[in-house]
Amino acid sequence: MRDVYVAGAAMTRFAKQPERNLKSLVQEAVSDAVEEAGVELRELDAAYFGNAVAGSLTGQEMVAGQVCLRPLGIERIPVINVENACASSSTAFHLGWQAVASGLHEVVLVVGAEKMTHPDKSRAFEAIGRAVDVERYPPKGAGDRSPLMDVYAEEARTYMEASGASVHDFAAVVVKNQLHGSFNPKAQYGARLTVEEVLQSREIVWPLTLLMCSPITDGAAAAVLVSEKHAPRVGGRVRVAASVIRSGVDPAHDSWIKAPSLAATAAYDAAGVGPEDIDCAEVHDAAAPAELILYEQLGFASAFEGAALIRAGHTQLGGRLPVNPSGGLLARGHPVGATGLGQLVEAVQQISGQAGARQVEGASVALTENGGGWLDGDNAAVAVHILIRG
Amino acid sequence: MRDVYVAGAAMTRFAKQPERNLKSLVQEAVSDAVEEAGVELRELDAAYFGNAVAGSLTGQEMVAGQVCLRPLGIERIPVINVENACASSSTAFHLGWQAVASGLHEVVLVVGAEKMTHPDKSRAFEAIGRAVDVERYPPKGAGDRSPLMDVYAEEARTYMEASGASVHDFAAVVVKNQLHGSFNPKAQYGARLTVEEVLQSREIVWPLTLLMCSPITDGAAAAVLVSEKHAPRVGGRVRVAASVIRSGVDPAHDSWIKAPSLAATAAYDAAGVGPEDIDCAEVHDAAAPAELILYEQLGFASAFEGAALIRAGHTQLGGRLPVNPSGGLLARGHPVGATGLGQLVEAVQQISGQAGARQVEGASVALTENGGGWLDGDNAAVAVHILIRG
Repeated sequence: MRDVYVAGAAMTRFAKQPERNLKSLVQEAVSDAVEEAGVELRELDAAYFGNAVAGSLTGQEMVAGQVCLRPLGIERIPVINVENACASSSTAFHLGWQAVASGLHEVVLVVGAEKMTHPDKSRAFEAIGRAVDVERYPPKGAGDRSPLMDVYAEEARTYMEASGASVHDFAAVVVKNQLHGSFNPKAQYGARLTVEEVLQSREIVWPLTLLMCSPITDGAAAAVLVSEKHAPRVGGRVRVAASVIRSGVDPAHDSWIKAPSLAATAAYDAAGVGPEDIDCAEVHDAAAPAELILYEQLGFASAFEGAALIRAGHTQLGGRLPVNPSGGLLARGHPVGATGLGQLVEAVQQISGQAGARQVEGASVALTENGGGWLDGDNAAVAVHILIRG
Repeated sequence: MRDVYVAGAAMTRFAKQPERNLKSLVQEAVSDAVEEAGVELRELDAAYFGNAVAGSLTGQEMVAGQVCLRPLGIERIPVINVENACASSSTAFHLGWQAVASGLHEVVLVVGAEKMTHPDKSRAFEAIGRAVDVERYPPKGAGDRSPLMDVYAEEARTYMEASGASVHDFAAVVVKNQLHGSFNPKAQYGARLTVEEVLQSREIVWPLTLLMCSPITDGAAAAVLVSEKHAPRVGGRVRVAASVIRSGVDPAHDSWIKAPSLAATAAYDAAGVGPEDIDCAEVHDAAAPAELILYEQLGFASAFEGAALIRAGHTQLGGRLPVNPSGGLLARGHPVGATGLGQLVEAVQQISGQAGARQVEGASVALTENGGGWLDGDNAAVAVHILIRG
C-alpha cells in the first residue's frame, strides 16, 4: 500500500446557519479544499461523501453526494455515499485513503456535510436518535434533547463512581474547550467560562448541564487526498499514517475493551507511534465526560486517571498534550456527518502550522478520534486517524 | 493492486416476505455466503453494507449494518454503511474489492439488504422516489407507483422514437426474463407468458404495463471477497476482473454518453476483455425498455439496435449472450439495496457452473450492470463488474 497525503483540507464555519442548505455548505468546503490542494475539479478520480441525518430531516436519502456535488460540476467519477452516524465523514476519509493507498486512484475528494437546524428542533434530536437499533429503541417523537445524551449521562455516572471524577472535572473540560473555541474563527462557540458557570447552566440529564452537551450545528468539511506524486512539497506534507475503523464490542465478551481503544491500538501499530508521540488530538467530546474517558481509551492516561490530566492542565493549549484545540464538538460544534472531517481539518492545520491563535507549537503528529452511533453499550463505529508531518 | 476472488456468494429468496425483518434476511444471506466461502466469522476483516430505504421505511438510518450484523456475532471489525440508491450493494462490493485489492484486508464481507414490503405500499414507492434531488423533486405522498417509473417511461418513449423499438419489443424482454425467472428457485416471479399477456396487463404509465415494471421485493445477498491466498482452489475460482463505479453525466456536456456506457468502457479496459467476450450478463431492467437501451450502452448492440437482439433471441437462455438469466429485476425481483449483489451472486453461480436449470453452458466471463438514482437525465450511480472464472 502506498503513502497517502492530505493536499488540501477546509471547512465552513460550524454554526447554526438556518438560511443555508446542504448544497451551499458543501460547495464552500469543497471549493476551498480543492483550491488549497492546487488541483482542478477534473483531476478528481472519486468522491466519498459522509452524511448522517439529511435523510431524516429533508428526505434526501441515497444520493446526497451526487446531488450536492453536481452543482460544482463534479460528475462521471464514482461518488460514494457513506453513513456511520457521527463517524460518517471520518469513514468517508478512510475509504478515500484506501482508494489512494491501493493505487486505484491518484486524487480523491472526501466530504462531510450536515444541515441540522430545522424549524422544529425536536426533529433534529429525533434524527440523531436513529443512530441505534431502532427496533429495540424506537425513535421518540418530540424531545428536548438528543436521546444519546441519556447514554452519555449514564456513561458519566458509571465513570464517576469508578474513577472518582466529579462534575467539576466535566465542567473543566467545557471551560478548556470553550477557551480553545474562542481562538477558532470557524467554531460555533468559544468563551471564557468558569467551572461554576458551566455547572449552573440548565441541567439536561444529571450530571450533564447544557454547556456539557455538544450543540446542533450546520457545517461541511472537505479534504483532497493524493498519492506521493501529487503531494505538495512546499510547506511540509501531511501524511495519513493510520486510518482505522472499528465497530463496537459486545460487552458479553470483553466489557473493559471499547471500540475507541481497539481502534487506537491498531492505529498506533499502523503509524509506528505511541500515545506518548501525539502532539495534539481531536476527540469526540459529544458530551464533556466522554473526553475524560477517551483520554484513557486512547492511552493518554491510565484507567480512571483521565481527570488527572484535565486537573493538571496537560490537555489545555500550552500543556503537554492539547486535546481539542479546535474547541471540540462542545465549542467548535457538532454537525454530525461533518464532525469527523472537521477534526481532520484541524489536525491538518495544526501539523502544517496553520492553526493561528490556537497553534500547538511544533506539532507534527496529530490524532483524531470520532465515534458514531450506539449499540450494546459501545460506539457502533469509531474512526481513529493519525496524521504526521513530512 | 492484487487480484480479488469471490470465495462465497449467496442470497435469500427475493420475494414479498412481510413476516421477516432486515436482520432475518441479512442473517440468512450472510450465513450461507460465509459457509460457502469456508471461512469463520472471526476471519472477517471488514464488512461493507449496502441498503437504500430502511431509513425511509423503518427509521433505521446510519448504522443499519452494525445493527443487522451484530446478532450474528460480527463485531469489532470495520462496518461501513453505503448508499447509492438501487446501486447500493454493488457499491458495497466495489469497496470490498478495493479493500482486498489494496492489501489492507484479506477476507471481507459484502452485504446488500432491503425490506420493502410495508403495510402501506405507497410508503415503499415514496421511499424509492427519494433517489433524486429531493429539493427539486420533493417526494410525493401516497402514490400507486414508483416515481422512477415515470422516468423510465419517458426514456422509453424517447427511445421508441429514435430507434423504432416497439412495445412488442419491451414485452418480449418481459417474456424472456419471466421465462428465466421460472428456472430460478430464488426468484420472486417466473412464468411462461406471451407478448400479448404482457401488453394486456394494467397500464402503469405509457408505454409501461404492470408486467414491464420491476416489483416491490424483500431480500438480501452477501459475498465473501478474498485475496488469492484465501481463494478456494476446488471447483474453479471466481476473479473480480473489473469493478467500476460512475456517477452520471451532465447532458449539457455529452448528451449521447450515459453512465452505464462510461462504466462499461472502463470495466472492459480493466478486465482486458470486450463486449464480445461476455458469456452472460445481469443488467438493470428496473423497467423492461431499459434492458434494450442497456444492450447498446454496454456495447452488446450498436446504437438503436437493441431491439434486434431480443427479436433474434440472442439474449435468451440458449442464445449467444443470455442477459438476465436470473430473471432480472423484472422476475427475480428488485429489493433495491440488495439488487446489485443479487446480480453478482447470479454471475458467480453462472461462471462456477452452479446455476442449475438456467445455467449458461460454458460461461466463464460474466458482466453485471446496476444503476441507481436519477440526476439530470442519467443514473446518479452505475456499477459495472466483470467476473472471470480461473
